[in-house]
Amino acid sequence: MSDRPSPDPPARLTRWEQRTEVPLFLAGLVFLTGYAVRVLTPHEAEPWNDIALTLVWSTWLLFLLDYAARLRLSGLGARFPRTHWLDTLVLLLPLLRPLRMVKVYLAVQRRRDRPRLDLYARVMAYAGMTAALLGFAASLAVYHLEHRAPGASIVTFGDAVWWACATLTTVGYGDATPVTFWGRVVAAGLMACGLALLGAVTGSFSSWLIQVFTREDEKRPPERG
Amino acid sequence: MSDRPSPDPPARLTRWEQRTEVPLFLAGLVFLTGYAVRVLTPHEAEPWNDIALTLVWSTWLLFLLDYAARLRLSGLGARFPRTHWLDTLVLLLPLLRPLRMVKVYLAVQRRRDRPRLDLYARVMAYAGMTAALLGFAASLAVYHLEHRAPGASIVTFGDAVWWACATLTTVGYGDATPVTFWGRVVAAGLMACGLALLGAVTGSFSSWLIQVFTREDEKRPPERG
Amino acid sequence: MSDRPSPDPPARLTRWEQRTEVPLFLAGLVFLTGYAVRVLTPHEAEPWNDIALTLVWSTWLLFLLDYAARLRLSGLGARFPRTHWLDTLVLLLPLLRPLRMVKVYLAVQRRRDRPRLDLYARVMAYAGMTAALLGFAASLAVYHLEHRAPGASIVTFGDAVWWACATLTTVGYGDATPVTFWGRVVAAGLMACGLALLGAVTGSFSSWLIQVFTREDEKRPPERG
Amino acid sequence: MSDRPSPDPPARLTRWEQRTEVPLFLAGLVFLTGYAVRVLTPHEAEPWNDIALTLVWSTWLLFLLDYAARLRLSGLGARFPRTHWLDTLVLLLPLLRPLRMVKVYLAVQRRRDRPRLDLYARVMAYAGMTAALLGFAASLAVYHLEHRAPGASIVTFGDAVWWACATLTTVGYGDATPVTFWGRVVAAGLMACGLALLGAVTGSFSSWLIQVFTREDEKRPPERG
Repeated sequence: MSDRPSPDPPARLTRWEQRTEVPLFLAGLVFLTGYAVRVLTPHEAEPWNDIALTLVWSTWLLFLLDYAARLRLSGLGARFPRTHWLDTLVLLLPLLRPLRMVKVYLAVQRRRDRPRLDLYARVMAYAGMTAALLGFAASLAVYHLEHRAPGASIVTFGDAVWWACATLTTVGYGDATPVTFWGRVVAAGLMACGLALLGAVTGSFSSWLIQVFTREDEKRPPERG
Repeated sequence: MSDRPSPDPPARLTRWEQRTEVPLFLAGLVFLTGYAVRVLTPHEAEPWNDIALTLVWSTWLLFLLDYAARLRLSGLGARFPRTHWLDTLVLLLPLLRPLRMVKVYLAVQRRRDRPRLDLYARVMAYAGMTAALLGFAASLAVYHLEHRAPGASIVTFGDAVWWACATLTTVGYGDATPVTFWGRVVAAGLMACGLALLGAVTGSFSSWLIQVFTREDEKRPPERG
Repeated sequence: MSDRPSPDPPARLTRWEQRTEVPLFLAGLVFLTGYAVRVLTPHEAEPWNDIALTLVWSTWLLFLLDYAARLRLSGLGARFPRTHWLDTLVLLLPLLRPLRMVKVYLAVQRRRDRPRLDLYARVMAYAGMTAALLGFAASLAVYHLEHRAPGASIVTFGDAVWWACATLTTVGYGDATPVTFWGRVVAAGLMACGLALLGAVTGSFSSWLIQVFTREDEKRPPERG
Repeated sequence: MSDRPSPDPPARLTRWEQRTEVPLFLAGLVFLTGYAVRVLTPHEAEPWNDIALTLVWSTWLLFLLDYAARLRLSGLGARFPRTHWLDTLVLLLPLLRPLRMVKVYLAVQRRRDRPRLDLYARVMAYAGMTAALLGFAASLAVYHLEHRAPGASIVTFGDAVWWACATLTTVGYGDATPVTFWGRVVAAGLMACGLALLGAVTGSFSSWLIQVFTREDEKRPPERG
């Protein structure tokens, strides 16, 4: 739940994290793009498919190097994977990288100009963007795993995106559902990650709306009272 | 998220907005009615269909004129579309106009008599009415896009309304679902807009109920204590 | 939203309401039972069906008499139906009577012994019981409207209850859904009433759980600190 | 709702409860494992099936003994089943035991080392783990009841787990749904218990996210202000 269990991270680790923020964010984008190209083009399509595969593996190597560097800089040794479990998970399942990317994007936004969005808007932006990126990654993975399965209802990438929309919003029409084991595992992961994020969007929107209406009351002097 | 980024809107813009509130609200109603007639009557049905088409386009021209006037009065120039992104979006996708209409309706209600509804009731009224109008607009659009598609499960307007109800409440039976690309795009839009609004209704209702029960406690003197 | 718009109801109205609380609660139970017998027994089943029909109509007459009495006692005249719109709605659609019954049940409970339940538990009890009774009434109505429709998926009362469960919780499997116009109208009503109530249950449960965990923190002295 | 209605439980009861916590937790695990083996192995598979049956019954006997001991120690007599209704329910429906197990697990965790998780994380951990265990128990029960039913869509244990995921998250695709009476009863129970728990997870996650973003604001001194 928390990435800051060590109350006093070494200064070198903090510096490393600040310097690698933007490169890692771009690497995350490259990874997702590479994976998308790999999944969406036919496997015979030279040379795009090979380039994409290379991109996927080389960005993953970058993630691994960053993880190793932070492990060493933290001075935590074998305890690092447990205390930074979210980083470990994202390293092993790089499709979950959006969970880290959006944080960086917001942090960079914040440093560039003073934040104009209030609290709820930022929570909505963070949770909504993460959910959207996770939904995109899950669509790719599910399309990859399902589109050749016998009896599959997800046969085009459009079906996969439609399925991800219906799943993330918990509408769940059931006209497109994964039928393979690994497709269902990805789906269960999307439910677990995505629903909490979208719940945060809904909750923040509700709080924001109440705040807006409350402010309207305060702004207006009691007329005709 | 916010329509008030400019801390000090010019007085002329404010005056313009207050004067055009009611006409724009009526224009929004006319637009929705015209679109409904256009979609629901057969295309050969003279003269209703032509009248409806004229109404749709002329009200949209009104929206465009209002947008241009506000752009000029705001003095923001090219920054206006970005700072008033919700207005821009509603201009381009006029079926989202309910997002602005309900605000006006409540503002007019407020000016006429002192508000009798408390905070949560107003949030519920605003979010519920917006969700209902958006659901109606989405039903029209989905019926329009789907009812002649091969293999469609939404073939009557009743089916479309039933689909919108099941989608907005996230029940999602799946007995009526869009099958065309654009039908699914509209559906995804309805999910994104509508669910947050209905989440606000549910959240406010919950807060309101807790408030009612709390007040009951306070009102009642401790009996038999 | 509120049944107490008149700031100072006449004392005779208050007395009337307190005296008729329990009889009306029982009449509500009799109405639901009568309707259930009427719907669930075959129409040729003499004499149960006739007795049930008589019960339904006579209890509804009681509701009408009570409404008329309160209208006269309130001294509001023609404004009464608007200010007490929930009462008016419940009179016209007596299957919504659970909305009033549960309130009475809790009020009676409260008067008999000091309340042992805390705030959230009471909200959960009220909202959960109302949702359950409304779900039961909607199951009856949907079974009544659907079980002979061509192509219906709700053909037994068990199917109707199963459908109501899946609808109220927004799971919406879609294996049993109404197909007739009026069945879908009842379903939309159940969604509108029931989901808000269940949202209140979920929200209160969440608040209650957080309260329990907070109290645990306070109770426990800082050990090993 | 509350297990602490007796304001002053006898000291011997408290001591008993503290001493039996860990054994009962392990017995709960053994019970679930035994039930899983019993359900998932073919009934002819000697000797695993017999061992599992023995484990299930002997752990249930332990639960019964513990219940009897607490009933006697509490000094409440016949009022015990009503005031400790959750314990009574868990005794009669031992598949609900996760509701008690997770509490113990967290209590033991707490005693061993100082809690590192903040309030919302603990609520999420408690509610999420309970929901997961209940979902597992419901999957077992539904698989047990459904896999031989004519026309069943849940024929493997994987289907049952997939169904439980889709139900707990209220997605409800409808590609796997119980068709037997008792299967639907278990499903309704899972909806009632599980949705509230997952609602608590979503609500706490939302609160936690808002807390994180609020803290970020406070930590950062006003730059460029």
